[in-house]
Amino acid sequence: MNLTDIVTPAALIDLSRMQHNIDRMQSQINSLGVSFRPHVKTSKCVEVTAAQIAAGAQGITVSTLKEAEQFFAAGIIDIVYAVGIVPTKLKQAHALISLGCDLKILTDSVASARAITAYGAANGLTFKVLIEIDTDDHRSGIKPESQTLLDVAAELVSPGAHIAGVLTHAGSSYDLNSPSALIAMAEQERSLCVRAATRLREAGYACEIVSVGSTPTALSAVNLDGVTEVRAGVYIFFDLVMHNVGVCSLDEIALSVLTTVIGHQEEKGWAIIDAGWMAMSRDRGTQKQIADYGYGQVCRVDGTPIPGFIVSGANQEHGILSSREALGTSISDMFPVGMQLRILPNHACATGAQFPQYQALDSTGHVETWERFYGW
Amino acid sequence: MNLTDIVTPAALIDLSRMQHNIDRMQSQINSLGVSFRPHVKTSKCVEVTAAQIAAGAQGITVSTLKEAEQFFAAGIIDIVYAVGIVPTKLKQAHALISLGCDLKILTDSVASARAITAYGAANGLTFKVLIEIDTDDHRSGIKPESQTLLDVAAELVSPGAHIAGVLTHAGSSYDLNSPSALIAMAEQERSLCVRAATRLREAGYACEIVSVGSTPTALSAVNLDGVTEVRAGVYIFFDLVMHNVGVCSLDEIALSVLTTVIGHQEEKGWAIIDAGWMAMSRDRGTQKQIADYGYGQVCRVDGTPIPGFIVSGANQEHGILSSREALGTSISDMFPVGMQLRILPNHACATGAQFPQYQALDSTGHVETWERFYGW
Repeated sequence: MNLTDIVTPAALIDLSRMQHNIDRMQSQINSLGVSFRPHVKTSKCVEVTAAQIAAGAQGITVSTLKEAEQFFAAGIIDIVYAVGIVPTKLKQAHALISLGCDLKILTDSVASARAITAYGAANGLTFKVLIEIDTDDHRSGIKPESQTLLDVAAELVSPGAHIAGVLTHAGSSYDLNSPSALIAMAEQERSLCVRAATRLREAGYACEIVSVGSTPTALSAVNLDGVTEVRAGVYIFFDLVMHNVGVCSLDEIALSVLTTVIGHQEEKGWAIIDAGWMAMSRDRGTQKQIADYGYGQVCRVDGTPIPGFIVSGANQEHGILSSREALGTSISDMFPVGMQLRILPNHACATGAQFPQYQALDSTGHVETWERFYGW
Repeated sequence: MNLTDIVTPAALIDLSRMQHNIDRMQSQINSLGVSFRPHVKTSKCVEVTAAQIAAGAQGITVSTLKEAEQFFAAGIIDIVYAVGIVPTKLKQAHALISLGCDLKILTDSVASARAITAYGAANGLTFKVLIEIDTDDHRSGIKPESQTLLDVAAELVSPGAHIAGVLTHAGSSYDLNSPSALIAMAEQERSLCVRAATRLREAGYACEIVSVGSTPTALSAVNLDGVTEVRAGVYIFFDLVMHNVGVCSLDEIALSVLTTVIGHQEEKGWAIIDAGWMAMSRDRGTQKQIADYGYGQVCRVDGTPIPGFIVSGANQEHGILSSREALGTSISDMFPVGMQLRILPNHACATGAQFPQYQALDSTGHVETWERFYGW
């Protein structure tokens, strides 16, 4: 299959860019002497994850138990479920562990820790539990200096649970855009997570795993003393948000949406394309960044960006392609009906999720279809 | 199955609200003496569409050829594909027509009209073609007074095509929020679409179908003289955007996301829930409206809204639930770990699309799982 055979809109992976991104991240983490556990929520795809493992990744991170089930069925044993577990999902986690999955679950509260140990004790299993640490005031997690850290640890001393370690995600790194701020955030993420591990050990608890990461901090870290593993997800494809953060160039973005021109509004300078928000997603992550790309950057079908042309509006199955500057020419001459284009997305995790499959394009122009997981 | 058995997040349909919405729209359109053709892009679900047909709908509208294929396989013959067709999709449309589907396709340009007639003539079929009319300067379509209207019609006089009529969608009705403005927009949509039909007929072309609609204009129209059918989609579920437009009350919103509390950030007044943007979608349609609901309005598990509580932030699998006003109580006391809630969405079309299935809840508390179509 070639590009022209594909029904648009389609989620296109440029395989040489993806492999470049995999190699770049793996060698960065190797050089820091820790192991790398990719977050597969970005791709939810067995073939993509296989390429990460082949390059040296050790285990995976998932955002749902469905991902854990699907990747375990595909042969991956070592899995961290990096979202705080709710009591009603313990049964589903138990089923996976019973089948041989080395699943680590996450908590950041006494209430959920208590539910975990109660379930484990009642059902004769010992959950491996990571304690979530808040290192950047961003979302979930326990402050490393808090009493709650020790209270949660105390709950986990039980036949039903074992403290596997600590985990943090400095998601606020997405709000930065200078190398110095990113290096500082990577060090903050590292030092506060290591501090939490130290407090646990000083209080007599085991803390084998010290897990940190986000794509921006993983690529910016210069020292990971005390850390055992790094997690990152979106680096596999990168996107316009990451480009604005400053951790990738436009030509490292490996995911795009293949689209076709439907029509025009000549006086407005609009071309209408068949990639609306159902294809691009409603993610407007670049809206508050240094460069707003609307719903995406327009590229020729070969992947070359067309400077100044973005998807400026989107309905469900209609995208509006326009120029940031006044046009000296006719939009329908530049983008005739039936023309194929590629659109670089704001956020690869959100855009990929709109598609049942990826179309994986190799350097010879051959395209293969790869399935993607979906739902919970 | 009951609510407590459902793995969260889940897309919940309140069936009595849905039936109320179906009956409300059908009787409005019946009272105006035209036929009703629901847009099934909102639900993409056979059971939901069956309820619309049972109430009197005649045919359906789709936004993708995949929807056309799936609903045709489920027994629906009369289908309008309401997105301008690109030449590469004519083969797929042809295949459907060959199987007996009464598919109408759409164009708004000489270029695509020419491609349609060329394909039809070369392949021995006569496509039924609707000409898209722009009645509100919103997106696609041809101005009713333009020369292009007649140029496109002239292209469609061919063995390969037949002018089935005209179609318009006043999508800018979503930007309004007063009954008088909505009534005026409904009249503008009607009169300009009828004007296009009149011009075609005066020039000697057939124009059987005059199709108008959007949920706000369909519910606001007081006169549909000259119109043959109305289309509307989101009314089936309604959502917070439609509530802000003023065409539904909160307790008419039939789609919600069932979610569970994961944890808290007590000092910030945050409860963390397992409905992030992957469940709610990234749609922030209420952001520029009279009331901004963040990523959704929080309700008790029985569907009662909890005033002032919204999903104020969202990551992929984490939602942040908080109060618009200062809280006089502990957030974890109000929303303990493990508590189930329902979240009303900004945009039902976008939120539904994040889920492989709906959980359809009847008035006895019984839940049935309904499949949803996905992709292109």
